[in-house]
Amino acid sequence: MSPDEFRKQGKLMIDWIADYYENIEKYPVLSQVQPGDIKTQLPENPPTESESMEHIMQDVNSIIMPGITHWQSPSFFAYFPSNSSGPSVLGDLLSSGLGVQGMLWATSPACTELETRVLDWLAEMLQFPEKFKSTSAGGAVIQDTASSAALSAVLAARERKTNYQSNDSGNLGNLVAYVSSQTHSSLEKAIKIAGIGKNNLRLIGVDENLAMRSDLLEDAIMNDLQAGLIPFFVCATVGSTSTNAIDPLSEIGQISKKYQLWMHIDAAMSGTAAICPEYRFILNGVDLADSFSFNPHKWMFTNFDCNCFFVADRFVLIKTLSILPEYLKNQATESGAVFDYRDWHIQLGRRFRSLKLWFVIRHYGVNGLRYHIQEHIRIAQQFANWVRASEEFDLIAPAPLNLVCFAHRNGNDFNKKLLETINSNGKMYFTHTVINGQYVLRMCIGQTNTREEHVRDAWKTIQETAEELSL
Amino acid sequence: MSPDEFRKQGKLMIDWIADYYENIEKYPVLSQVQPGDIKTQLPENPPTESESMEHIMQDVNSIIMPGITHWQSPSFFAYFPSNSSGPSVLGDLLSSGLGVQGMLWATSPACTELETRVLDWLAEMLQFPEKFKSTSAGGAVIQDTASSAALSAVLAARERKTNYQSNDSGNLGNLVAYVSSQTHSSLEKAIKIAGIGKNNLRLIGVDENLAMRSDLLEDAIMNDLQAGLIPFFVCATVGSTSTNAIDPLSEIGQISKKYQLWMHIDAAMSGTAAICPEYRFILNGVDLADSFSFNPHKWMFTNFDCNCFFVADRFVLIKTLSILPEYLKNQATESGAVFDYRDWHIQLGRRFRSLKLWFVIRHYGVNGLRYHIQEHIRIAQQFANWVRASEEFDLIAPAPLNLVCFAHRNGNDFNKKLLETINSNGKMYFTHTVINGQYVLRMCIGQTNTREEHVRDAWKTIQETAEELSL
Repeated sequence: MSPDEFRKQGKLMIDWIADYYENIEKYPVLSQVQPGDIKTQLPENPPTESESMEHIMQDVNSIIMPGITHWQSPSFFAYFPSNSSGPSVLGDLLSSGLGVQGMLWATSPACTELETRVLDWLAEMLQFPEKFKSTSAGGAVIQDTASSAALSAVLAARERKTNYQSNDSGNLGNLVAYVSSQTHSSLEKAIKIAGIGKNNLRLIGVDENLAMRSDLLEDAIMNDLQAGLIPFFVCATVGSTSTNAIDPLSEIGQISKKYQLWMHIDAAMSGTAAICPEYRFILNGVDLADSFSFNPHKWMFTNFDCNCFFVADRFVLIKTLSILPEYLKNQATESGAVFDYRDWHIQLGRRFRSLKLWFVIRHYGVNGLRYHIQEHIRIAQQFANWVRASEEFDLIAPAPLNLVCFAHRNGNDFNKKLLETINSNGKMYFTHTVINGQYVLRMCIGQTNTREEHVRDAWKTIQETAEELSL
Repeated sequence: MSPDEFRKQGKLMIDWIADYYENIEKYPVLSQVQPGDIKTQLPENPPTESESMEHIMQDVNSIIMPGITHWQSPSFFAYFPSNSSGPSVLGDLLSSGLGVQGMLWATSPACTELETRVLDWLAEMLQFPEKFKSTSAGGAVIQDTASSAALSAVLAARERKTNYQSNDSGNLGNLVAYVSSQTHSSLEKAIKIAGIGKNNLRLIGVDENLAMRSDLLEDAIMNDLQAGLIPFFVCATVGSTSTNAIDPLSEIGQISKKYQLWMHIDAAMSGTAAICPEYRFILNGVDLADSFSFNPHKWMFTNFDCNCFFVADRFVLIKTLSILPEYLKNQATESGAVFDYRDWHIQLGRRFRSLKLWFVIRHYGVNGLRYHIQEHIRIAQQFANWVRASEEFDLIAPAPLNLVCFAHRNGNDFNKKLLETINSNGKMYFTHTVINGQYVLRMCIGQTNTREEHVRDAWKTIQETAEELSL
């Protein structure tokens, strides 16, 4: 495709996307297609000859679009959001256009140095201690997802505890890790991947707010020590996926120091709230952590994928993940004056992801970012108040930020039916969880363009549908 | 950013990228900045208030661009390429614009079903046996990189061999894996990550073409069996990173069947050549493999990241990597009628990456893709012939496809100096490897717009610089 043709087709694509944003509320939020509906419309064989962009875009409109669940709709309240914004899409477009691969400093110095700088900005925005900054012994890296960050943390913890012997000898089956029953499933996955084994993962009980009980954590560690096992890792969560529960970081941090565990903090969605001074308290205790991760691709207007993973001691992470074959050797690496970010994660190759984060922070400014986060929380709290005031619905868990967990009083089957009915009419999309056997509805408010009116409409839809189903 | 502002800024960005492609040959291919040059120009603190896109783009031009190594320059001959194309950038832009997260079928059915269909297309283009197609017991998934694909293969192999006990109990230290001395470093990294341990990774010797010797592989397996260890995994390479060596797939495949090892094939760059009937022979033996991976983001005009990972038995992969917490349960998943691709890789979240691959295959058509690959190989072979005919340079390894390894007869120090001198003048960028103690120059020809004239200029530059350095 010539630069001129790219100019033409690119502008058509920009218009297509702008039109999409203008009309996004006309689509059913949750795609209404059935399994196989999309695939059967796509040819079974690849085209032998070139096809026009016009033809391809016709198929996008007629075949692909009905199969889209609209994550960028302001009435998307499901899961955690994966929000986006104009500057982010443009930063990502620039990254695609430049097409650099930043595995080493030398393979594009700007890709590494912009990333380092922007992550130091984030450390400041989150009021992190110095240790997490590149100018200290720590630093940060952009990963794809919180799952990969958690795996990196588990691996670094494994190596630190075994004096870097597991990388050589393999894991020996006596390391033990701790999470709560509410910790994200990616931690269990990481423990399995790292060869630790699910049997060596303790699910610590939670309090009435579904936060990890630090007394039970310490009990479990002491039990394992008495059994001759080696506690090495604990993950504390700030904003659990089910209910946005916040683990007691300071208490867990003190225990992890006492017993020399690596403490990782998973703040995938809720970490973003801490850029607002009034919500910074959710990270109190982060100074005791060894690593921390959150996803600007969830709630900070930066399109997927963009996870920021901070470590207090980059030496451990790099020693854990570094491999240096001859074909990657170069002067800059040998000088020791640069970061080679491929030593900070699982993958070797890496995209220029800091561009979109840089664009977002500069376009909004810190105050602009705070404003939008504060608005989301304000609207969510309003929704929580409506639930509290309702005679049909109950709030099922504390709603500290932007996630509201609630249920109709008619019981599990009713709530399940309510969710399915609402999602299948396409006006909004929300999801569920189960807490102590209770089927619970989740409203997570974090899409970039969600305003009070959307949440008000959602509450109306929920109430009206419940009324209809009650007849 | 309003849709109208996005329209305006998006079109400016499209023009910026088109201008970049038109002028790319004016930049030094390898960035000439020193460590810290970029970072020190970026403010130490994030902006409090919003900044304009004009201001941001000024900084892109003045601060970022000097720190870019131009992977999309037609004179980029370093490493393996990470090539791109207009339709790919547009498909990626559409993916950013839609902003869907395809972790589950339900979270955007089109994201899953387009991926399945396009990967089945690739299976046909590569003349794969039926077992690798979604319509059989196997299937494929788009991962970020060949490193992640290799890790997924190692994990699936580990679980199959231990009857899915390692996920529960942790690895027990008696599993053994096999690669050659030329296998990519990501395999060693995967073995460490999976808790197998580097000491349980055997580096099998190679023949004069640097391909794995299957007789030595079988010897090593028998030794390990006699020692009471459990051989479980072998990786064969099609196109090694150092020299493009091609391991004997059929022989390795027969041995892996005989001793019940999981055979993974890493064809990260060179796999693409197999879409040309005359180069399909490089995959002879793939029918014996359990998994296969190659990167359209290297040599198939699809911008980073896009790795395609095929498995013969998807059940094993899914059982290895599946985690199903309550908050991800849904009707479609429970019906068993759909793929949930988050069970096919390390991460949970996933981007709509099949769009760019779909755009590329349709824009070029299979014949168009073949044409460009054939041209790259033709030009590389011409370069290899120039080296063969030269009295100063020697070809150091066979050049079966698009990578030429060569060295000046003046020895290691001279070749190192030659490489550094040429790269520092910015006209081209190539890299090195070391083979049997010899410092070897690598010319890899695979950037989308590389034509005969660029390679001819490169050869002229290499010869002239060598002459100057010889004075």
